[in-house]
Amino acid sequence: MSAGRVVLLSGGLDSAVLLAVEAAAGNEPMCLSFDYGQRHADRELAAAGAVAEYYGAERVVIGLPPDVFRGSALTGGGPVPHGHYADPAQAATVVPNRNMVLVACAAAYARSAGRGLVGVAAHKGDAAVYPDCRPEFFDALGAALRFGCGVRLHAPFLSLTKREVVAIGRDLSVPFRLTWSCYEGGEAPCGLCGACVERAEALA
Amino acid sequence: MSAGRVVLLSGGLDSAVLLAVEAAAGNEPMCLSFDYGQRHADRELAAAGAVAEYYGAERVVIGLPPDVFRGSALTGGGPVPHGHYADPAQAATVVPNRNMVLVACAAAYARSAGRGLVGVAAHKGDAAVYPDCRPEFFDALGAALRFGCGVRLHAPFLSLTKREVVAIGRDLSVPFRLTWSCYEGGEAPCGLCGACVERAEALA
Repeated sequence: MSAGRVVLLSGGLDSAVLLAVEAAAGNEPMCLSFDYGQRHADRELAAAGAVAEYYGAERVVIGLPPDVFRGSALTGGGPVPHGHYADPAQAATVVPNRNMVLVACAAAYARSAGRGLVGVAAHKGDAAVYPDCRPEFFDALGAALRFGCGVRLHAPFLSLTKREVVAIGRDLSVPFRLTWSCYEGGEAPCGLCGACVERAEALA
Repeated sequence: MSAGRVVLLSGGLDSAVLLAVEAAAGNEPMCLSFDYGQRHADRELAAAGAVAEYYGAERVVIGLPPDVFRGSALTGGGPVPHGHYADPAQAATVVPNRNMVLVACAAAYARSAGRGLVGVAAHKGDAAVYPDCRPEFFDALGAALRFGCGVRLHAPFLSLTKREVVAIGRDLSVPFRLTWSCYEGGEAPCGLCGACVERAEALA
């Protein structure tokens, strides 16, 4: 397989930083974004496209059927809760098993594209509310990928806070203005959802 | 979560037996089938629907975008090789990371349906050619599912040959006539592909 890598690019801050790191290292990253029925899909996918274009990276959008993920506040199963990621109410924004589905599809895509590594930008701040952003999850998933299809999983931010990820991005002059975090997906960021609160903290 | 289980139902022999076992145990199985661009999709999905109907089980078909799996002989990336599963030429029928994608989607679906277990009918005969049918793969995948979304993975046939799976099915009077194995997906089974050869051996 080629040295080229696949980066999961959501359109938010963290994956933009990962793309920047991979591009700076000369790893020929290509980007995958997913429409999985998230209410902020239009905003996220446009942001991801703009970030990929900024780095001159190929970007593919994969549309998943809406019946895979249902019942989360992020997929229309209720209102988006306001407040900090550490707030128990943020559990409503969990999309069960989302990261395994996205990484699994990305690895399948990578294999058929002759690429041997999938990069994911999950970080320590995500782990508070999202079980599929924790190191033990990615350790097991990485082993399954190795055994199942020989693709390597690369999650270099797992032990970093979002603020530390942003600091790496600042060093690399990542165009954060192009990214989108808000779960609501309205005209402008709501400033109240967990993603907006966390973004503001990290950029402060 | 409820006691209900989700069974991956391909339309072939093995998953029909797993559905029969789950139904006989009163585990309220519901079935998921996938259209992932396999050339035998029409035949497989019709067979899976007939088997689910026979057992009075709910059955849902999830259509995956064709760009996830490309380049396998099973998804139109070349001719289907003839011969036995143990033949190296059968490697052309590997669909990289297929089982992780299917199980990951099934677990997401299970969680939103309030079901806490996903059953898969992979067996020892599959392991020869398909890396994502081996025990070490399912061990790691099961751990990732537990950590990531709390769903249990159940793969009870991993140490059994297909002949032994069929024997369990015969004890339960599984209607094998309703199932479909052939990779070609033509009017009648080709009798020459790996799936046909393996089916004939197991039923002999």
